[in-house]
Amino acid sequence: MPSDISNHPDRLLPADPGVREIARGLHAAVADLPIISPHGHVDAAIIADDVAFPDPTALLISPDHYVTRVMHSAGIKLDELRVGGTEGATPREAWRTFCKHWPLYDGTASGYWLRQEFATVFGVDDLDIREETADEVYDAIQARIDEPGFRPRALMEQFGIEVLATTDDPLADLAPHDKLATDEGFRPRVLPTFRPDAYIKFWADDFTGNAERLVQAAGDGRSGYDGYVTAMANRRRYFIEHGAVSSDHGTETANTLKLGRDEAAALFEKGVAGTATHAEALAFEAHMMYVQAAMAVEDGLVMTMHAGVHRNTHPESLARFGPDTGHDIPHAVDFATGLQPLLADFGTAEGFHFIPFTIDETVYSRELSPLAGFFPSVFIGAPWWFLDAPDAMMRFRASVTETAGFSRSSGFIDDTRAFCSIPARHDASRRIEAGFLARLVAEHRITEERAAEIIVDLVDASPRRAFKL
Amino acid sequence: MPSDISNHPDRLLPADPGVREIARGLHAAVADLPIISPHGHVDAAIIADDVAFPDPTALLISPDHYVTRVMHSAGIKLDELRVGGTEGATPREAWRTFCKHWPLYDGTASGYWLRQEFATVFGVDDLDIREETADEVYDAIQARIDEPGFRPRALMEQFGIEVLATTDDPLADLAPHDKLATDEGFRPRVLPTFRPDAYIKFWADDFTGNAERLVQAAGDGRSGYDGYVTAMANRRRYFIEHGAVSSDHGTETANTLKLGRDEAAALFEKGVAGTATHAEALAFEAHMMYVQAAMAVEDGLVMTMHAGVHRNTHPESLARFGPDTGHDIPHAVDFATGLQPLLADFGTAEGFHFIPFTIDETVYSRELSPLAGFFPSVFIGAPWWFLDAPDAMMRFRASVTETAGFSRSSGFIDDTRAFCSIPARHDASRRIEAGFLARLVAEHRITEERAAEIIVDLVDASPRRAFKL
Amino acid sequence: MPSDISNHPDRLLPADPGVREIARGLHAAVADLPIISPHGHVDAAIIADDVAFPDPTALLISPDHYVTRVMHSAGIKLDELRVGGTEGATPREAWRTFCKHWPLYDGTASGYWLRQEFATVFGVDDLDIREETADEVYDAIQARIDEPGFRPRALMEQFGIEVLATTDDPLADLAPHDKLATDEGFRPRVLPTFRPDAYIKFWADDFTGNAERLVQAAGDGRSGYDGYVTAMANRRRYFIEHGAVSSDHGTETANTLKLGRDEAAALFEKGVAGTATHAEALAFEAHMMYVQAAMAVEDGLVMTMHAGVHRNTHPESLARFGPDTGHDIPHAVDFATGLQPLLADFGTAEGFHFIPFTIDETVYSRELSPLAGFFPSVFIGAPWWFLDAPDAMMRFRASVTETAGFSRSSGFIDDTRAFCSIPARHDASRRIEAGFLARLVAEHRITEERAAEIIVDLVDASPRRAFKL
Repeated sequence: MPSDISNHPDRLLPADPGVREIARGLHAAVADLPIISPHGHVDAAIIADDVAFPDPTALLISPDHYVTRVMHSAGIKLDELRVGGTEGATPREAWRTFCKHWPLYDGTASGYWLRQEFATVFGVDDLDIREETADEVYDAIQARIDEPGFRPRALMEQFGIEVLATTDDPLADLAPHDKLATDEGFRPRVLPTFRPDAYIKFWADDFTGNAERLVQAAGDGRSGYDGYVTAMANRRRYFIEHGAVSSDHGTETANTLKLGRDEAAALFEKGVAGTATHAEALAFEAHMMYVQAAMAVEDGLVMTMHAGVHRNTHPESLARFGPDTGHDIPHAVDFATGLQPLLADFGTAEGFHFIPFTIDETVYSRELSPLAGFFPSVFIGAPWWFLDAPDAMMRFRASVTETAGFSRSSGFIDDTRAFCSIPARHDASRRIEAGFLARLVAEHRITEERAAEIIVDLVDASPRRAFKL
Repeated sequence: MPSDISNHPDRLLPADPGVREIARGLHAAVADLPIISPHGHVDAAIIADDVAFPDPTALLISPDHYVTRVMHSAGIKLDELRVGGTEGATPREAWRTFCKHWPLYDGTASGYWLRQEFATVFGVDDLDIREETADEVYDAIQARIDEPGFRPRALMEQFGIEVLATTDDPLADLAPHDKLATDEGFRPRVLPTFRPDAYIKFWADDFTGNAERLVQAAGDGRSGYDGYVTAMANRRRYFIEHGAVSSDHGTETANTLKLGRDEAAALFEKGVAGTATHAEALAFEAHMMYVQAAMAVEDGLVMTMHAGVHRNTHPESLARFGPDTGHDIPHAVDFATGLQPLLADFGTAEGFHFIPFTIDETVYSRELSPLAGFFPSVFIGAPWWFLDAPDAMMRFRASVTETAGFSRSSGFIDDTRAFCSIPARHDASRRIEAGFLARLVAEHRITEERAAEIIVDLVDASPRRAFKL
Repeated sequence: MPSDISNHPDRLLPADPGVREIARGLHAAVADLPIISPHGHVDAAIIADDVAFPDPTALLISPDHYVTRVMHSAGIKLDELRVGGTEGATPREAWRTFCKHWPLYDGTASGYWLRQEFATVFGVDDLDIREETADEVYDAIQARIDEPGFRPRALMEQFGIEVLATTDDPLADLAPHDKLATDEGFRPRVLPTFRPDAYIKFWADDFTGNAERLVQAAGDGRSGYDGYVTAMANRRRYFIEHGAVSSDHGTETANTLKLGRDEAAALFEKGVAGTATHAEALAFEAHMMYVQAAMAVEDGLVMTMHAGVHRNTHPESLARFGPDTGHDIPHAVDFATGLQPLLADFGTAEGFHFIPFTIDETVYSRELSPLAGFFPSVFIGAPWWFLDAPDAMMRFRASVTETAGFSRSSGFIDDTRAFCSIPARHDASRRIEAGFLARLVAEHRITEERAAEIIVDLVDASPRRAFKL
């Protein structure tokens, strides 16, 4: 008695029979295309070392704040889910808790992905995800995990992942990436991404130490701000030499700012000394976005910006469980004003690619489409985080297409640390693209032939184009 | 020749035949469930005293700013509608004016509710709402009003209202609530709600007098800020003893602020003296939201916040007709930043329930769902005021569900002073929930069985859970 | 083998068969109504002089920033499209570039309009818009342009344009308008619109010169601020005498401000002297919006405000190609707060009409509908610029109707400088109105009879009512 939805061929396709029929055809055209994942948070080491995943809870629950926050909102303590290395319950107990709360995921994107993973990766029907059968499912998944064919590398090939970008510290040696790149038996590309947030935000944990380490490691003997900027450029080059195609920046706002060298250096000194105000810290962050863009124009790294989130808003949870544990809260963001200094100078620079991501839907039609509809450098970032969900993705396309068409977006980004959810996420996106295009066909706004070309372009060519793959 | 829409069994259900068929079944599962109305503006005295409504205009038009503002926008003066006690026309003349303008309500939520009220409460077909037959309809409704069975208590039972919360002044004696609670022949619960706005906003009419009265009445002999806070806590307890389950706060912003006792006391003294700046008044309001939350953690009252409205924007109308006469205008609101102090300290406090309401749709996916998707204390307030309308409610569900699921919202809130519209409002909400869930079933995102469970939970269990009923 | 979408009778109508059938009937009721265009950017002189259009590129591409920005985003330089009088390519070469990039327009509003123009105005199938057949199409369009029947006046009658408003400098003599008004053989009305932006914004090109010219021309001998205000009023009267029904204002924000005469005069002197800060310039703009409204109450001109756009954000493109070349970027705007001073004083003034336009969709349900749902002076501006597109127009109706009904909007505004696109734009709007109303009929929210009345009111009566035509 399998669930009638787990793997229904028409899942996520539009309800209208005529539109659905068109959507089926469009989805079929891209269903088996390779997965290109140019931004995410999988750890390269687990692929390089190809170690087995430990247990169902460690694989599917504890590290995934999309999953744990839902149970937390229902009153479950995060240590009962073994978040952040805590051990308030055994892996099996945590799994039971999850199964008991499985109905809470109905209607959520996480619930959709998990259901797909259960069905396609683990052969578990979601009807069995309940308190009574929790142990059986736990054992079944554990058995699957223990299979030799379930190691990360094998899965990656089985999932059809052609490109997977990781997110890395600027001082990382990128040895796992090298190991994978030089392994002739392993075809997928695993690329590092340059993510210097902790070296730019004065309020980051040990910014002073980070900045000093950066200058020492790659400042070419210079000190202070000059050494810092030199080191930043050098480490970008190091990343490029090791396969990176993009830098990523998680910012409080979308502000960019061009400061003179002396003014920037003075701010930097305050940051290192720990005497900068929050306003000065934000100014320095905005300035460094400008600097990163200038470097991108030189070295060719694609620049992505994830803007508009208050990070770690619950102090107690941060203290006990660390960052990325579910209490980052988005806020409104002003790209139109914030990006002006950056785009005024680099908006039409040859080869510059800038991809803004946001969780503020209001900027899709108001700011991002007009920007991407003029500046050749700007590609609209796919719906991110909370918006990487069927209805939200549909709203995204409906908001951006009429101004920016189909050629100006980044392609789908899974942005995930949940390795086994990658195929489900990409498939969901492809189904939504098919549904959106099918409606346009049914409304005689594009032809079915063009829709078939467009969906291939969206799924395959867009991420390659935007990320220079 | 009745209107084909007044009471059409499929009204408000989705147009797609397949989705509609599913929606019919889901709606049927909740159509006859009792009405739970945990927030509204009906006067408890009219139920306690069970007095007859005076006339159609006084019942349906004059006190309902949803209704009068539409005619005002078409050039009708509010005194012609007898707003705020004015008498620029007789009740019958005002009714004729309404009938003449009835087509203006097409497509509006108010028009939908009124049509349902006419059909189900008064037996009047909306096709008869026109200038030519205005007098006949007036007489027919008057006759209905004069029936003994049309008294508030009888209607309340006839409407199937199980719980009705009123909104009350902190110094109210709540005698009507006591009278109803001790009447063994009357089963519905009529609960007071603690609404201290006029005792918190320095810019409220006679804030100084209000604060003094509060301190004198319940300050336990203390004076100044200490007496004020003591009195606030005492009156909350008085409300709880008289059945209250929640406090409600209408705020200019969503800001919260934790001030030290001395700083707060100094602000309070300025407020009482009338020397506070607007910024100081807002700071005190933000601080008092923090204080109310702290009290709620202690005494268990659910805290609801209605944020983001400029009140009484048209001075001339305020002067002539009083507040709540149609010129309150919503504005953007920042819950993500504003609630941070409150949720940092109380977000995971045992038993704390916080329900934010807004008319700014942009925060649904961006702020409220992420907040309610992590903090066990936060329940997303149902679409409020201008958003309590079919399409807006549908947008609400589509915006919040993918992040927060179906378990984190407040349940429907009618928030109305229009007593006879209550059944129509709740029925509209149930139809929209059915339509939303039916689409998810048709798209194979949830099973039909789960959808049937979810809609019962949304309609019946959610408000009981969120409001501790 | 014509494209199956170019002129499909059901284009833009909803996909659901039942809803579509209703929509067909509603669209038929308005398909042939005359075009009323109360705001746009066609140059009256080309109609008055009735000169032939030069070539396909000059007619359809170079002056239309909606069209050129799409190619620019794909890396085409604006001089290759002959923008702003540049000649980086011949007209024929520019046309070839356009044909090569035609697929980029799929899904965009511009693509839809162009396809309609090709099909209905030029008899060109959009399947022929490709690189290989670019020259043939160029020649075909050129031949059509050269026909005597293709002059502006003939087209205007052929298009069924009854009213066309232009946008004019306050010191314009309006001779073309007079010439057309006194031509008894020409029935359409071509009306000027008073647009004083360049005489109000201190940051406008040569504000000082503009202000001096204005005072000298119409200041009745007064000087300084008093002469300036007098001249403004006089020129408004001049426009009214020459047929104008509205003034239009493109503003950075929606702020309005009532300054005393002396304070305003002091600001004005700083503006003329070039010593005002940006904040002072914005304050003066806000004040002048208040002044224009006061004048409108006196002289009866409808006041339209296009708010919330950063103009000319790319300095290099501005320098080379001039303004209005595709890099104006919208931003969030606060009508609720900004309009308060203006509406507090004039919101219920007899005969005052105020029409706010925006590209910030968030204000539709939050601010504009509540404002228009109370103030008889406020009419909600139709979706503007980037939002004048099928899905965006549908979102507009779904956002405003439930609060404001169908009687409080401006009617469709094409706001275009692309003369030949006018019929396609109005037809698209009518199809979307039909589709929206059809859904409400199918959901039993309005009757089909009323929907048929409403669509005629929306298309024909609304713009006449809002713009006093």
